[in-house]
Amino acid sequence: MSKGLLIILSGPSGVGKGTVCTALRPKMPELIYSVSATTRSPRAGEEDGVNYFFKSREQFLSMIEADQLLEYAEYVGNYYGTPRDFVERTLESGKDIILEIEVQGALKVKEKFPEGIFVFLLPPSMDELKDRIRGRGTEHPDVINHRMSVAEDEISLMQHYDYAVVNDEIDLACKRIESIIIAEHCKIREL
Amino acid sequence: MSKGLLIILSGPSGVGKGTVCTALRPKMPELIYSVSATTRSPRAGEEDGVNYFFKSREQFLSMIEADQLLEYAEYVGNYYGTPRDFVERTLESGKDIILEIEVQGALKVKEKFPEGIFVFLLPPSMDELKDRIRGRGTEHPDVINHRMSVAEDEISLMQHYDYAVVNDEIDLACKRIESIIIAEHCKIREL
Repeated sequence: MSKGLLIILSGPSGVGKGTVCTALRPKMPELIYSVSATTRSPRAGEEDGVNYFFKSREQFLSMIEADQLLEYAEYVGNYYGTPRDFVERTLESGKDIILEIEVQGALKVKEKFPEGIFVFLLPPSMDELKDRIRGRGTEHPDVINHRMSVAEDEISLMQHYDYAVVNDEIDLACKRIESIIIAEHCKIREL
Repeated sequence: MSKGLLIILSGPSGVGKGTVCTALRPKMPELIYSVSATTRSPRAGEEDGVNYFFKSREQFLSMIEADQLLEYAEYVGNYYGTPRDFVERTLESGKDIILEIEVQGALKVKEKFPEGIFVFLLPPSMDELKDRIRGRGTEHPDVINHRMSVAEDEISLMQHYDYAVVNDEIDLACKRIESIIIAEHCKIREL
């Protein structure tokens, strides 16, 4: 049995990574979704090992220490990271696993897992991205401009990825990602 | 506008290249099929520029001379070849073109067109291939064994290809080829 593939779906904030991942689930039921570890408290209905692996700060720091995370970051006082073990066990079992992650995190995963398939989700246009970022709430123009400039920086990192998928329509974006996974399974790898 | 892709569909004789190509037409109507040049006479209903480019022996030899063929071969006294011009004009127009060809011919195309996407069509098993070769007619066992040994040699050349597609079911094989083409359009090429 051959090993599964690790697919990393990334892209600037606001591009629709989460929406595309959710739409992909019923289309590719055999695809496993990576479960993050976090130090934040479980919210109502969240299950350990399903939504997140819930860890104490001490446990998380010792995972970092032991190189048990493919990447990690701190957001508003809590740690979030990708447990290497869950990814590797899934791949060993012959199943594909997808990891939805920010651009900086994806580049860290690439250092530890260069054989991953790195997919960059692109907005149809920068105007469209601005609309989506603006549409999220009633943010101050400075905040929107800052987010746009971060997004532009992130898009300039696309060259480190294997594939670019335009998120013009969810179904089309899903079909492109599904096609990439099927094609990668057909790829003849050098011995 | 970006250039189209050249897809080379190849594999051992008996694997079903022609059947897969025919099944692919209605599924991918935008895909252009390469038209071969030949010195054989047109059969009833065959049109110049549609089924083949019909050439005199002299014309064909001067095309070889002028390096106007991506590959060519002689079968039972007639020449067959792939005109470079038709392929290049299609690619320049932004359209994808598929070329169905024997293994030796594909490797010659690769020398002149390394940026092509080389897809190797595989039988589900060697037993299945033997059945298909046997099923073609009432051939002598020596002929069948010779064809099988040629097919084995050809399969050993698969390592020079980019993708391997198993022809277990026509529809699945078509979906894999379609996926490869979609994925290749999403690929981020190094600058």
